[in-house]
Amino acid sequence: MSCKTVCKIRVRYGETDQMGYVYYGNYALYLEQARTDWLRKMGHTYKSLESENVLLPVTQLSINYHAPGHYDDLLEIETTLIQKPAVKIEFSYTIYNQENKRLVTAQTTLAFVDKKTGKIRQAPDYLLESIDKNMKS
Amino acid sequence: MSCKTVCKIRVRYGETDQMGYVYYGNYALYLEQARTDWLRKMGHTYKSLESENVLLPVTQLSINYHAPGHYDDLLEIETTLIQKPAVKIEFSYTIYNQENKRLVTAQTTLAFVDKKTGKIRQAPDYLLESIDKNMKS
Amino acid sequence: MSCKTVCKIRVRYGETDQMGYVYYGNYALYLEQARTDWLRKMGHTYKSLESENVLLPVTQLSINYHAPGHYDDLLEIETTLIQKPAVKIEFSYTIYNQENKRLVTAQTTLAFVDKKTGKIRQAPDYLLESIDKNMKS
Amino acid sequence: MSCKTVCKIRVRYGETDQMGYVYYGNYALYLEQARTDWLRKMGHTYKSLESENVLLPVTQLSINYHAPGHYDDLLEIETTLIQKPAVKIEFSYTIYNQENKRLVTAQTTLAFVDKKTGKIRQAPDYLLESIDKNMKS
Repeated sequence: MSCKTVCKIRVRYGETDQMGYVYYGNYALYLEQARTDWLRKMGHTYKSLESENVLLPVTQLSINYHAPGHYDDLLEIETTLIQKPAVKIEFSYTIYNQENKRLVTAQTTLAFVDKKTGKIRQAPDYLLESIDKNMKS
Repeated sequence: MSCKTVCKIRVRYGETDQMGYVYYGNYALYLEQARTDWLRKMGHTYKSLESENVLLPVTQLSINYHAPGHYDDLLEIETTLIQKPAVKIEFSYTIYNQENKRLVTAQTTLAFVDKKTGKIRQAPDYLLESIDKNMKS
Repeated sequence: MSCKTVCKIRVRYGETDQMGYVYYGNYALYLEQARTDWLRKMGHTYKSLESENVLLPVTQLSINYHAPGHYDDLLEIETTLIQKPAVKIEFSYTIYNQENKRLVTAQTTLAFVDKKTGKIRQAPDYLLESIDKNMKS
Repeated sequence: MSCKTVCKIRVRYGETDQMGYVYYGNYALYLEQARTDWLRKMGHTYKSLESENVLLPVTQLSINYHAPGHYDDLLEIETTLIQKPAVKIEFSYTIYNQENKRLVTAQTTLAFVDKKTGKIRQAPDYLLESIDKNMKS
């Protein structure tokens, strides 16, 4: 594994809108699931980060919609770590449908925040070590 | 005011699905907004309840869908307290559209829970007093 | 296979609320995914039903919340067909978390509607045949 | 009125997440409501656009999250038309809470699409005329 992962998500009916497309705001849920999956493949869970008082609020989101997603599509989301994190962690994403058509490209920035103080903090060491290990392999 | 209130909600595009109807699960958000509004008209906010360590999780929901809601509909929701609350509070709801067509009837039960102990508790006295006062007037 | 299926769903962060629980309305999405999965295991897709002008709007939903779901829970949803469908199809559901704790029991009724006329219609024969075949096996 | 409008939105409980903040993806719904409101104040509805076969899918979204929104916040959203539309329409948004704290800045691009052909088209003349009229006044 490099620092790029792939995860699959099936589009729910309730995630479409009356245009017959995936509603533009619902991609945020898919991106969240994709970076959670990335973290899990790095050997961690976002849940355990939180239980160690590390919050990861999103500070920046940008999405380009190239083609519409549809109900029951089996989306494939590529998630790539842009650079080694310091106080922030940045991902880029590309979403394809089952016919390998590119639907969406996106980018997010999340900040490491200390749950107790509410202040920005460094990424935890164990996360940086996992990233180092995966970047080498 | 009696213990029945009316609140208006405009349907968002993202709340419809590809059938062109309001997605059946999204009515839960409308019911939440309606009972929050009921509470506000009784002189309280759910936010202040929580800050006094009273949680109100939903324990029972039932909805009958009589006719579909559509994008941009200006829904009118009637919220009625079924009986004076003890450890639970029960509401019934009727949702009409702008042409006074009945779309949905629903019922919810919420439990009063102590945030610190996680245990069921009695409804706060100040809430019961407001209800008494409104029932008389 | 009988007419009972099991599907697994991972809870997203965006599906929780500030109580730290899965928001009560979001179970509607899980139930939708569960019955879509049921249909797929019967050899059909809801997408293909729609493309043959059969709509399946929900007419009745009831949910009992026994215990809260949490972020990152891997839910297991048992979906059971209550009886052979005619103009309506009824399912019951039980949702467990990864520790086999029962969180939710629910029931839905959906109506078979002709997309062109908007009228109630019988369940398609090919669906009834699949159900017969699976009930026998 | 200029080509800037202000609309107010109350945050629902189901729109928060377990961090106690408005979930980052839910702002997309608020932006949608804000530009629908903008259009209504210009004398049009998005619903009527659709009924005249003009679709307006979002092609680009970017959001900066400066401070978290909370449950029951009464958000104020300023919506500004960036320039006179041709085949696309661009808005910028600033979201404040009730204490006039700036929470979010955002930008969206939407494309005018012919519903029948699926092709990009020019903005309808009646919309351009309303914009001209409002820019002058």
